[in-house]
Amino acid sequence: MRITGYEHAGTVHVAARDGEELIALGPVEAFWQDPYRAIEDGLRADTRLPAGSVRPAPPVRPSARILCVGLNYREHAAEGPFDVPEHPTIFGRWTASLAVGGTPVQVPVDEAGLDWEAEVMVAVGRPLSCAAPHEVEAAVFGYAAFNDITARRAQKLTTQWTLGKNADRSGPMSDLVTRDEVGELGRRKVVSRVNGEVMQESTTDQMIFSVADVLSFISRTFTLAPGDLVATGTPAGVGYARTPPRLLQPGDVVEVEVEGIGAVSTPVSHRTT
Amino acid sequence: MRITGYEHAGTVHVAARDGEELIALGPVEAFWQDPYRAIEDGLRADTRLPAGSVRPAPPVRPSARILCVGLNYREHAAEGPFDVPEHPTIFGRWTASLAVGGTPVQVPVDEAGLDWEAEVMVAVGRPLSCAAPHEVEAAVFGYAAFNDITARRAQKLTTQWTLGKNADRSGPMSDLVTRDEVGELGRRKVVSRVNGEVMQESTTDQMIFSVADVLSFISRTFTLAPGDLVATGTPAGVGYARTPPRLLQPGDVVEVEVEGIGAVSTPVSHRTT
Repeated sequence: MRITGYEHAGTVHVAARDGEELIALGPVEAFWQDPYRAIEDGLRADTRLPAGSVRPAPPVRPSARILCVGLNYREHAAEGPFDVPEHPTIFGRWTASLAVGGTPVQVPVDEAGLDWEAEVMVAVGRPLSCAAPHEVEAAVFGYAAFNDITARRAQKLTTQWTLGKNADRSGPMSDLVTRDEVGELGRRKVVSRVNGEVMQESTTDQMIFSVADVLSFISRTFTLAPGDLVATGTPAGVGYARTPPRLLQPGDVVEVEVEGIGAVSTPVSHRTT
Repeated sequence: MRITGYEHAGTVHVAARDGEELIALGPVEAFWQDPYRAIEDGLRADTRLPAGSVRPAPPVRPSARILCVGLNYREHAAEGPFDVPEHPTIFGRWTASLAVGGTPVQVPVDEAGLDWEAEVMVAVGRPLSCAAPHEVEAAVFGYAAFNDITARRAQKLTTQWTLGKNADRSGPMSDLVTRDEVGELGRRKVVSRVNGEVMQESTTDQMIFSVADVLSFISRTFTLAPGDLVATGTPAGVGYARTPPRLLQPGDVVEVEVEGIGAVSTPVSHRTT
């Protein structure tokens, strides 16, 4: 099942996508209290609306944590250059930076451009506290394609990457696809394209830390809650590490695709401020 | 005016504290749309409830960003030891880690204890995008005392501090005090105490980057929104850098106080899981 979001009466609501229609699954905060039950109840009620009639929004709780794993593909670590880390390197995004496909992103004023990072995003469906890796799978709600669009100058200005990872509308995500529909993550292609040209292409079996490892690791320091999101890192081929370097400019369109999960496309616009 | 929060019908509401009474200022999301107007309207309506009758909560939007400045007091940078940075070092907390005074915090399972960090927290009252330092003051809504309680092992495990800065209930904050009531930040004492013993004691004039510098800096990469919080860094005297090191253990009580703003006290509890 494909899970999406839309704005309604000042709040975000969640819906299941069924062709050109959406099936309403309730307000986003209520949905993530128990997403499995919200789906059951929503499908039973079967309240439908045309997908074209709504303003789309990420189906994400405002308080959700977006935990991003740095350096989770060997070849991307090497292009840093960084050593292959012993533990998952976790940095954070706030939901304020999320966007749906098609939403333009602007280059922040001090940046020479923006960089792309194709990723698989995981949504948590059940609370996880001190979970062993084998307990994680049952708590994975679903997956999305995610572009961790980065302001590299701000990211690298100090030791901490947070600032450069939270530019306005710099976190486009696709619909979430539920775990039962995705099946095993296995060896899926993760691709980014700029104006149609492939920039990154790898497969999910190249991750250094698996989804189970990462969620288990995090859950030993704090409790993951339904609706939290984990972006699992990006493969080699980001712009700043290319020869010559290449960054997104106004007029470019960047797309991230994860095989069997989805795609999300983002135009880079001129600054209006 | 002292601004606080309380739970009501499943959401957080904001209130002004008036002695033993609270004056209702509306649901937290609506409040931060325009906090100045919400205060005006709330005071006019003058709906009161006894402070003792409610369950307190931080008066913070679920989607608020908590931007924390690392290394913002020279003597604390030195005890790292870190060089004095050229730019504010920004890391993030999510609102899920916030708590009100009196809320027990637990030591995460892999940690030898928790560390304290006394800070002044600033709440943003108006949007800030590419703001010059002199434009920042008018956008400061108010201030709180904040304890950036830290899981040091997790913080230092990789280059990124995020994980160790988001343990469950590890971010206790006092009421917010509005800027008009606080006046100039000037030279205010920032103190932490463990079981009554002073651990940190400095003054806000020792900050390397002023509130205006930090908010202006951030606003060049992304737009700050009303309700966002900035924790302005901690002075020397944290536990891990002491000789011998000292960390919070179950049974300890840690308190942070900022002169003329407020205090927040946190008991460390035994693990229940």
